Amino acid sequence: MAYGLLKGKKGIISGALDENSIAWKVALKAKEEGAIFTLTNAPIAMRMGEINKLAEACEAEIIPADATSVEDIENLYAKSMDILGGKVDFVLHSIGMSPNVRKGRAYGDLNYDFYKQSVDISAMSFHKFLQTAEKMNAINEWGSVVALTYMAAQRTFSFYSDMADAKAMLESIARSYGYRYGKLKNVRVNTVSQSPTKTRAGGGIAGFDSFYEFAEKMSPLGNASADACADYVLTLFSDLTKMVTMQNLFHDGGYSMTGVSAELLEMIKPAE
Amino acid sequence: MAYGLLKGKKGIISGALDENSIAWKVALKAKEEGAIFTLTNAPIAMRMGEINKLAEACEAEIIPADATSVEDIENLYAKSMDILGGKVDFVLHSIGMSPNVRKGRAYGDLNYDFYKQSVDISAMSFHKFLQTAEKMNAINEWGSVVALTYMAAQRTFSFYSDMADAKAMLESIARSYGYRYGKLKNVRVNTVSQSPTKTRAGGGIAGFDSFYEFAEKMSPLGNASADACADYVLTLFSDLTKMVTMQNLFHDGGYSMTGVSAELLEMIKPAE
Amino acid sequence: MAYGLLKGKKGIISGALDENSIAWKVALKAKEEGAIFTLTNAPIAMRMGEINKLAEACEAEIIPADATSVEDIENLYAKSMDILGGKVDFVLHSIGMSPNVRKGRAYGDLNYDFYKQSVDISAMSFHKFLQTAEKMNAINEWGSVVALTYMAAQRTFSFYSDMADAKAMLESIARSYGYRYGKLKNVRVNTVSQSPTKTRAGGGIAGFDSFYEFAEKMSPLGNASADACADYVLTLFSDLTKMVTMQNLFHDGGYSMTGVSAELLEMIKPAE
Amino acid sequence: MAYGLLKGKKGIISGALDENSIAWKVALKAKEEGAIFTLTNAPIAMRMGEINKLAEACEAEIIPADATSVEDIENLYAKSMDILGGKVDFVLHSIGMSPNVRKGRAYGDLNYDFYKQSVDISAMSFHKFLQTAEKMNAINEWGSVVALTYMAAQRTFSFYSDMADAKAMLESIARSYGYRYGKLKNVRVNTVSQSPTKTRAGGGIAGFDSFYEFAEKMSPLGNASADACADYVLTLFSDLTKMVTMQNLFHDGGYSMTGVSAELLEMIKPAE
Repeated sequence: MAYGLLKGKKGIISGALDENSIAWKVALKAKEEGAIFTLTNAPIAMRMGEINKLAEACEAEIIPADATSVEDIENLYAKSMDILGGKVDFVLHSIGMSPNVRKGRAYGDLNYDFYKQSVDISAMSFHKFLQTAEKMNAINEWGSVVALTYMAAQRTFSFYSDMADAKAMLESIARSYGYRYGKLKNVRVNTVSQSPTKTRAGGGIAGFDSFYEFAEKMSPLGNASADACADYVLTLFSDLTKMVTMQNLFHDGGYSMTGVSAELLEMIKPAE
Repeated sequence: MAYGLLKGKKGIISGALDENSIAWKVALKAKEEGAIFTLTNAPIAMRMGEINKLAEACEAEIIPADATSVEDIENLYAKSMDILGGKVDFVLHSIGMSPNVRKGRAYGDLNYDFYKQSVDISAMSFHKFLQTAEKMNAINEWGSVVALTYMAAQRTFSFYSDMADAKAMLESIARSYGYRYGKLKNVRVNTVSQSPTKTRAGGGIAGFDSFYEFAEKMSPLGNASADACADYVLTLFSDLTKMVTMQNLFHDGGYSMTGVSAELLEMIKPAE
Repeated sequence: MAYGLLKGKKGIISGALDENSIAWKVALKAKEEGAIFTLTNAPIAMRMGEINKLAEACEAEIIPADATSVEDIENLYAKSMDILGGKVDFVLHSIGMSPNVRKGRAYGDLNYDFYKQSVDISAMSFHKFLQTAEKMNAINEWGSVVALTYMAAQRTFSFYSDMADAKAMLESIARSYGYRYGKLKNVRVNTVSQSPTKTRAGGGIAGFDSFYEFAEKMSPLGNASADACADYVLTLFSDLTKMVTMQNLFHDGGYSMTGVSAELLEMIKPAE
Repeated sequence: MAYGLLKGKKGIISGALDENSIAWKVALKAKEEGAIFTLTNAPIAMRMGEINKLAEACEAEIIPADATSVEDIENLYAKSMDILGGKVDFVLHSIGMSPNVRKGRAYGDLNYDFYKQSVDISAMSFHKFLQTAEKMNAINEWGSVVALTYMAAQRTFSFYSDMADAKAMLESIARSYGYRYGKLKNVRVNTVSQSPTKTRAGGGIAGFDSFYEFAEKMSPLGNASADACADYVLTLFSDLTKMVTMQNLFHDGGYSMTGVSAELLEMIKPAE
């Protein structure tokens, strides 16, 4: 069911890799709700080609951009404004990667060049998206910027390794830039902290499947799906949430506020 | 602009006192968005009579209920289900009162009977709303319950006195019952922590006007209005936020995440 | 090993029931560190008589007090000042009880008279300890007040039932009164949020044993013992922590900041 | 007054620049409390030479180390173990610097090379201290590691610029490594979030003086001094806090938990 929530709005959506991506769902639903937008991803991620299907379904153009390159981001905003016919109203940042996690390096054996890449790609890129937008005046008054994050920024999940530190920094950037952009243009900046999700990014993490089950048993509503996450992101892009800013918003079926569930206690019952 | 976000939904809205009330705005907008609902308030609050105007505008019936009385709450649900033709999908709890604040008693000179009343009216009533609903099976699967709260539950605002403690308890009830109701019926329970708002409740607090100005200067987007708050509450009642539960959600123009604003620093500039 | 950390300090320690109590350990160690103090407990708790052994070991007098009675608390401070020869420097509040938990009533079937008792005994008593102290000017400048709490105030542990709500209120009182007493007399007020502990209070909770194991497996340092908790409380009574106030301090072997441990993931490993 | 709290303990203290530094105070007090330790700082910081006075007063050797260099940190641990005659029991990380702040670049005009330096020096260095210690097995069982941080990691203080993001990452590292080192060796890792302090680091920030006044007026106990902070750090190095780990501990006179103070409200009183 569509409501026309984003009617007349323009945006940029990053991070759609395949049909399991949260960004992919956001794009499909944003289209349904009346928005027009461009899609972007790293040139390397796009070689896999699935994003073309999405672009077609959404009648959206794809603008490749390396999220660590200010030049690429400038080009992204410039082309987007050109294609969409003006400044944008919303931006989705769904970008993150840790070479340390990919190569299975433990948190006590990090490669520091990889660590810097994790931070550059997963956190600093968000600052670049915001600073570049401000400098180019590319976001309309009362626009909305959302980045996807994970609760490892608050509590330790050892398999998440240096991505936890990058996400903590990402959430700090949302607060810091949210203050600034709010003052300047009433633009709001928030992060959505989503349940573990069976996307390609999630799938690349050792121990992910066990944790997915753990979180499923912990959350009173179960793990939130990518679809549900996309619905939630739409509300944050809509005009109904104009005064919500600098927040980290948990979309997780209640996981974050559950100390322990009855199911998990049952599993662990001491022998009598 | 209306989207039909609550089309076909049934609800109960408490706490509409006059046209400045957040609950009043929620009712008007919920109507616009396609919901049908009943209104409720304390018998004593209703003598002032303004709520009749609202009822008329919303084509809603009023069911008086003392929020500390389980019997009254049972009657509220029974009548609501009868009038609306079935279980409800959403409930707004916007109820709070502190006799200590009203009588200007400092936090170091609380009357303990008053303190118990503050807690009973402002926090325990929320548990009664939830426990009674569960016992009567009065809320549909995937229903949504929202209570209004204030950030004094996290940090001290001396003028807020024992209401801070009551709100901390209210937010705990949202988490505790959210877990339970989520497991049982996928019902979600959240609190919305709103900017200081010029309602009759806010107006009754000494020092409120100064604080309103302080918060206005602190928040990058300024204080959130009652209207904006109502918009936000609607998203929480809609089907787009089904997996958000047990959360305390700040709707405050960024106040909660701002350490200090440039404006306030300017004011306090030390003499040179 | 003793350091003389509390040399010359006077205090009041509540809640020592038997040798497993945290308060019992605090008393023994406070004595070792050079403090003199009085002991207090509910008249009914004292009938069991073990506290007399503690009083002997500490050369401390026992002053029975019902923590819900302002009169009893006035008597407690008056006698303590009389016995100790002046105002006190530290107060330990280790008081909590829920008739609903005791009688095994689920959170969806609370008896509201019991609920009020839980709040009165476990939370409001702390306000009475503080307000009475202020009115009698019974705490020295730079004195330190500590209350014991549990993380259920932040996240839901269903077996903890209405005690979660009472603890959330207790922690709010620490903040609210900490602000006030800090301004007035530089007295600091904090809560210590301790691991599940095999005390008589803990033992009375159904599901406690399973949870103890769960927390043990989650915490990188394991569950903190009552002994270790007492050590920590001493640092908060000492002159080395004068500027720490209004805080909720986790003493839990890292539990609160651990999302999931390797051990728990191992247990939950999905079948292949 | 000394208690012998750190009798027999060995440590490493970084970051003592001059007699206003928190690290300087920690060193003097650690000496008084019976510890032996080495001092370290960046070669460039040491040219100013004041640290020699401290080294003399503490009978401590100085080992220069660039905190971004793993090699230097390896040398620091190797020499420290050699000089002190074995593994260390405590480490203080008091290292942070932002070229963006120094050069007065606004958060919307960051130089990204500088940003990377801020993160490398102020956050990643902490990971290097920990990973190197683990690899060299340089910290005793039940050792304690503390890093100094600032509340800008939780809320925005615009003058703090990219240091906020670096501090958020630093605190995440404390949690992530605290989990790991706790499991492996029962080593605890915490951060202390200190009031604004008139050190050389603080003094370099534009707007710092106004904020110092603001915080002074907000905190019920006033701003915490460097001296008081050193006292607090000692408790965290002592055996009395063995089960406290992965925490961010506010040492701030109550600032963090105060929404607004009466003084600030008074200043902002609207004209009548």
